[in-house]
Amino acid sequence: MPIERIAILGTGLIGASVGLSLRSHGFSGHITGWDPNPTELAEAERIGAIHSSSHDALDAARKSDLTLLAGPVFTILEWLERLGSVLQSGQLVTDVGSVKNALCEQALGSYNLVHTAGFLPGHPMAGKEVGGAANADAELFKGAAWLFTETPESRSMHKASRAIADEWRAWPQKFGCRVLDLEPERHDVLCAWVSHLPQYLSTALSALLEDEFPEKDEILPIGGRALREMTRLGASPFSMWRDVAHTNTEAVAASLLALEQRLAHLRENLKTPELRDEFERANRFRVQMMPRNK
Amino acid sequence: MPIERIAILGTGLIGASVGLSLRSHGFSGHITGWDPNPTELAEAERIGAIHSSSHDALDAARKSDLTLLAGPVFTILEWLERLGSVLQSGQLVTDVGSVKNALCEQALGSYNLVHTAGFLPGHPMAGKEVGGAANADAELFKGAAWLFTETPESRSMHKASRAIADEWRAWPQKFGCRVLDLEPERHDVLCAWVSHLPQYLSTALSALLEDEFPEKDEILPIGGRALREMTRLGASPFSMWRDVAHTNTEAVAASLLALEQRLAHLRENLKTPELRDEFERANRFRVQMMPRNK
Repeated sequence: MPIERIAILGTGLIGASVGLSLRSHGFSGHITGWDPNPTELAEAERIGAIHSSSHDALDAARKSDLTLLAGPVFTILEWLERLGSVLQSGQLVTDVGSVKNALCEQALGSYNLVHTAGFLPGHPMAGKEVGGAANADAELFKGAAWLFTETPESRSMHKASRAIADEWRAWPQKFGCRVLDLEPERHDVLCAWVSHLPQYLSTALSALLEDEFPEKDEILPIGGRALREMTRLGASPFSMWRDVAHTNTEAVAASLLALEQRLAHLRENLKTPELRDEFERANRFRVQMMPRNK
Repeated sequence: MPIERIAILGTGLIGASVGLSLRSHGFSGHITGWDPNPTELAEAERIGAIHSSSHDALDAARKSDLTLLAGPVFTILEWLERLGSVLQSGQLVTDVGSVKNALCEQALGSYNLVHTAGFLPGHPMAGKEVGGAANADAELFKGAAWLFTETPESRSMHKASRAIADEWRAWPQKFGCRVLDLEPERHDVLCAWVSHLPQYLSTALSALLEDEFPEKDEILPIGGRALREMTRLGASPFSMWRDVAHTNTEAVAASLLALEQRLAHLRENLKTPELRDEFERANRFRVQMMPRNK
């Protein structure tokens, strides 16, 4: 029982990359796209990420076996709310949102019931600092983790929706992803550390350098790979990260506070043996990291 | 009047990469290497970074037109002191140290005088998080900045040494470097921001994650490019960065404190419009950075 029709709501970087990945890995059905930005939608169709464009997102979702919500967290929340009463059992909604607990709570009561569509919360750990369908890539997810955060409710969705969900869970593996299951709350804490903290840190460092060196002529010519890498995510769009800040506030704030304290500790120990210990801890972290993440 | 004999004291990553770069860009003279670690020295010779190995660094320097000091800052300080009384006018010492003011002060009184060798302080803004001649690369410096921090004293070195210095200053350009001149004090402040701060930040983040997740099984499978990039420098060796911490303490501490305050500011504004302003500043920084440093 193959998935025949997919609707991608949000054909920016991630949505369009999913479309490209599906097609390059042999998806034989039809993909309809919708985006609030007509330029993004046209670009997604031009690069072949979607077969057709829709100007009516609800209609596109209604006619699809699976609807992928690909946008910032607040946008996904809004679509979850709008689609709940429009879809029915045998249909599935899944998403790519960076925060999962708020989405799982939104789904309560309007998904995963006998007569409603299923909701399978998903999160590919891949992206770029530049958005848009023009940067989409069929290989974006290769080697990345694709997380699912099923809940007791999603596990008991209607069997017709479950068949779609089980089929969908196989696609990221075809894209070359490691598919992993996490509880939504744990997902949000872990992602605060490995994804959200690095983002806000890179933003803070970039903003600090922007204020410190308004002219740039002094620092840009001498900066090397370290500066480029540590500020790369400074280019990330506010729209996406505002939603993460609002929906994962506590975990993000805790990780930021811990880093502030760690930097103060290092600063106070620049000339003590504790600096060696910090480098040794950091070295150990990287040694354990390297075999998995080159 | 070409440079005919070069001694490289310290044939690790940077020293061996300079040797490889010289040879691949047409240096026709002889390069002798010395290193406190016989394995590094043998590896440098094996990969062709040096023509011959010396077991007597002073002797190698005494017989060379130019001696390149390639090691941590304290090691360079020590060699500057030892070589001052051994070399003479017509010879040149240059270096690749990450901090320059302390080195320029060390050179006062024993270099750049009528009967002494010249000292040309240099600093290529390139490196890797892994050291050693085994990681040396003839293209390491391509596209990087190579900074010189000449002083009133170095500008008045003996004309026979100056001829060597002027010839040496042309080599980084052949390697594909942007050659820039800075005052030593300003160099140390700028490098604190664009090089030393990113390093200690990456060390602190890596050490924090090491303590927070001793098992790693939870975070390593889900971490993506952001985590890899932001912790890459966590692998950097303590030996080199201890010396930077000791010789550029004030500037490094000031940049760390500024970042701590910036992170606190961002943390306190996760749900206010100020977050947008931080992202816009960061975005502006990256827009200005991109054309120069891809």
